[in-house]
Amino acid sequence: MPTESKVDVLVLGAGPAGLMCAQGLKRAGVNVRIIDKRPKKVAAGQADGVQPRTIEVLQSYGLAERLLREGNQMHMVAFYNPSPNGGIERTGRTADITAPSARYPFEVTLHQGAIEAIFLDSMRELGLEVDRPIIPTALELSHDENELRDPQSYPVKVTLKHLDFGSEGQDDTEIVYAKFVVGADGAHSWVRKTLGIIMDGEQTDYIWGVVDLIPSTNFPDIRNRCAIHSSNGSCMIIPREGDKVRLYIQLSDKDVVVDKATGRVDKEKTKVGPEELLEVARKSFSPFTIEKAGEIDWWTIYLIGQRVAQKFSVHERVFIAGDACHTHSPKAGQGMNASMNDTHNLIWKMTYVLRGWADISLLRTYEFERRKYAQDLIAFDKKFSALFSGKPRTEECQDGVSHEAFLEAFQTFGAFSCGIGIHYSPSSIPSMPNITELKHQSLTSHQTVGMRILPHVFVRAADARPFEIQDLLPANTKWKLVVFVGDIGPGKIKQIERVAKLADDLGKSTGLLKRNA
Amino acid sequence: MPTESKVDVLVLGAGPAGLMCAQGLKRAGVNVRIIDKRPKKVAAGQADGVQPRTIEVLQSYGLAERLLREGNQMHMVAFYNPSPNGGIERTGRTADITAPSARYPFEVTLHQGAIEAIFLDSMRELGLEVDRPIIPTALELSHDENELRDPQSYPVKVTLKHLDFGSEGQDDTEIVYAKFVVGADGAHSWVRKTLGIIMDGEQTDYIWGVVDLIPSTNFPDIRNRCAIHSSNGSCMIIPREGDKVRLYIQLSDKDVVVDKATGRVDKEKTKVGPEELLEVARKSFSPFTIEKAGEIDWWTIYLIGQRVAQKFSVHERVFIAGDACHTHSPKAGQGMNASMNDTHNLIWKMTYVLRGWADISLLRTYEFERRKYAQDLIAFDKKFSALFSGKPRTEECQDGVSHEAFLEAFQTFGAFSCGIGIHYSPSSIPSMPNITELKHQSLTSHQTVGMRILPHVFVRAADARPFEIQDLLPANTKWKLVVFVGDIGPGKIKQIERVAKLADDLGKSTGLLKRNA
Repeated sequence: MPTESKVDVLVLGAGPAGLMCAQGLKRAGVNVRIIDKRPKKVAAGQADGVQPRTIEVLQSYGLAERLLREGNQMHMVAFYNPSPNGGIERTGRTADITAPSARYPFEVTLHQGAIEAIFLDSMRELGLEVDRPIIPTALELSHDENELRDPQSYPVKVTLKHLDFGSEGQDDTEIVYAKFVVGADGAHSWVRKTLGIIMDGEQTDYIWGVVDLIPSTNFPDIRNRCAIHSSNGSCMIIPREGDKVRLYIQLSDKDVVVDKATGRVDKEKTKVGPEELLEVARKSFSPFTIEKAGEIDWWTIYLIGQRVAQKFSVHERVFIAGDACHTHSPKAGQGMNASMNDTHNLIWKMTYVLRGWADISLLRTYEFERRKYAQDLIAFDKKFSALFSGKPRTEECQDGVSHEAFLEAFQTFGAFSCGIGIHYSPSSIPSMPNITELKHQSLTSHQTVGMRILPHVFVRAADARPFEIQDLLPANTKWKLVVFVGDIGPGKIKQIERVAKLADDLGKSTGLLKRNA
Repeated sequence: MPTESKVDVLVLGAGPAGLMCAQGLKRAGVNVRIIDKRPKKVAAGQADGVQPRTIEVLQSYGLAERLLREGNQMHMVAFYNPSPNGGIERTGRTADITAPSARYPFEVTLHQGAIEAIFLDSMRELGLEVDRPIIPTALELSHDENELRDPQSYPVKVTLKHLDFGSEGQDDTEIVYAKFVVGADGAHSWVRKTLGIIMDGEQTDYIWGVVDLIPSTNFPDIRNRCAIHSSNGSCMIIPREGDKVRLYIQLSDKDVVVDKATGRVDKEKTKVGPEELLEVARKSFSPFTIEKAGEIDWWTIYLIGQRVAQKFSVHERVFIAGDACHTHSPKAGQGMNASMNDTHNLIWKMTYVLRGWADISLLRTYEFERRKYAQDLIAFDKKFSALFSGKPRTEECQDGVSHEAFLEAFQTFGAFSCGIGIHYSPSSIPSMPNITELKHQSLTSHQTVGMRILPHVFVRAADARPFEIQDLLPANTKWKLVVFVGDIGPGKIKQIERVAKLADDLGKSTGLLKRNA
């Protein structure tokens, strides 16, 4: 007989989306379990760019300090284009982040394993570890409507298989009954396929290689993000932690063999390896030189697919998040950010529903908000990838992409790509909490959903200590009450009286602060 | 036979001076040992104010982050004086720190035990623990001049007694041969007495009580530093970590019995306890009320002594530091700062001498610099204590201390008391390193010894990342070379060439960077 157990939330997959989800739920006191098929966390390569808004989100969970200590910061972006003398030349430099309200006006780059370690260590302090190596083998969702409507029921039955069992004759199968399941199991998501959710979109014919290395180079912008458009192809430079650099290198379809069935690069038949990638990069870099100063840290080759899942959940009981519901080009540095922010969106909603603070219908806003965002992301990615993968404008190629067109696109998409411009369509969220005594609740309809409070330093009246208001509003799954009291300086008796009355009312035994949510 | 061992530096006493010393030496790779007579670190009370310059010093060892996380910040100071209507009223508020160049423009308050824990934990990471409970019982210094001159000799023999041995019949005695000994063993220093060093100065007749408590009060400035001059005596408020507050309460000599022999308060015969102290405070606070909201955390009564040791070392082989060489009023918040900065002054000098990077005569500058500082501190303390302990000016008392006079003194001494204005007299230090090829070494005679580099954000040319220059110059006992390159922007060919030549020269195999110090 397999072991059986119950859990509030079962998270499948311990990449950035799954780890964000698990740590946030654990912090909120939710009974959560997270499993992963890999025996260990990622060691190198993979995603590595953390956008300004994501840094703010991590800070709201107390996780940004270590990210900032360990990561590299990208403050500047440089653009290189064909020089009339042959080779490339710098055509401009600008701030990497153009959103004026960014609290952290830069991107952080750090390899995915180090970012996962930040989550894993913080989870360990909270008493939560990833169970691994485990894979799900079956998932059943109840059809009983009453059961589906009751947030305290366990309508999802998941069968798990322990990959490290069996050799000792143990039963490697386990049954888990969950109130909710989050499938954060990557681009080839087992959860998505099991639920029969279709991905909308298409494969592009843009083929790129990625190499992580410590370079030896005379290229002057090697520590800046660079977009190189050369007559020999495009290349993007992402400086990384330590002395590492990531190169995104455009390949032509004659370099690469694509498996028609899967639409993925056939790494067996493709004769391109890291040395060949570096050789292609060298041609784009000319007249500058670039060599590896040590071993190649990590490399891959991929075709850009631009797809969004048709649904992000089934009955708001099983969700998919991260790469499981959207795939796109990595070069705008969005992947890990989109993934972590998917589950950041889900954490407080699941917690409120489990606590009985919100109706289960709140969970519908997850797909409503995040699917629209994913579609916008793909639209952005299509324009950006086309500009980036396109031929540069030269005398011989007058219909190529000009520096001006690329720069304009870069800056137009700035607020979106740094995450600060991501907002959601109107929904019932601003009218929560649904407290009938609140006479002026209707005023909240003017609020933009998904817009975070602007970072701003406030001075505490009691001791003149400055505080960043974002730090006073952590992501701790509690309601926050912020009162902007206006001018209560000397002589402003009437305003002082209004504030005093509000404080009195709130503090009463029947007041808002004493109520259960 | 007692155990015998050798050590480069033996530190006696694990208070702030001793811990600063031990962690800095250990960080520098010096073979250091630290002992203390207490079986455990301080748990509450004692010193608690960390001045802006001391925060910078702690930051230079990587220790400020935790201090800032755990401590309270004092940004504002409020002044209360007798009201014409009886009781007290606020006569002014101003910034607690007036030094314009302070990187941290506030004081941090945190109890001594928590500050010691920051040192202890950082030492543990470096592999160093305090040996305790141990006391020194004998100290002999060689008279051999050759031995004293050789920094690699062990001219100090210290006998130690293990207080937790003996009951099991173990030999509780141990002999340590040290190159250098630092006596950081407090106001009643055994090292100082054993060396026969006299304290110059005198006892005042100012008697003060101290109470640490969580208050319940309607006093509006309870979270600010406050100087209260009332007709019922003076009181100082120091807000502390959490909701704690420290009150310094002026007592009259009729409240307290002083032991004529020791000059210390006879706590047995004195009938004043924490409740009586609070009762005295209540009179100063009127018309405001103050009660304790829980238990009294810590309390004491003391007479202010203002003394400086005649010598800070014997033959630059045995040093005294911290309270062992200066005692003064605690109310200007200097004690722990003076102590930690004594040994901060000693760490790099001892390290350089031990490494052979500097002549042993460098160590003479310790007393030269820190004794003069201690004398200035006492002079400051005399003026400040007199103003603070004096009667306030009222209609009946026209020769009392006016608010204006007190405020002026507070601001005049601002740079000194926050630590940033502490500089030393000219010495041989600016002409180190003594490299004959440096043609322009004589220019260093214009440098002010002890002045730290101004905090300022510089943007790194390679990646436009801003750095606080103080963070690029940590207290890691290495020479630092800072080149201010002037304008090397586009077109500044001549200046670019000068900088390139300097870089070439420095990098040569015979260049400065390749030399042993």
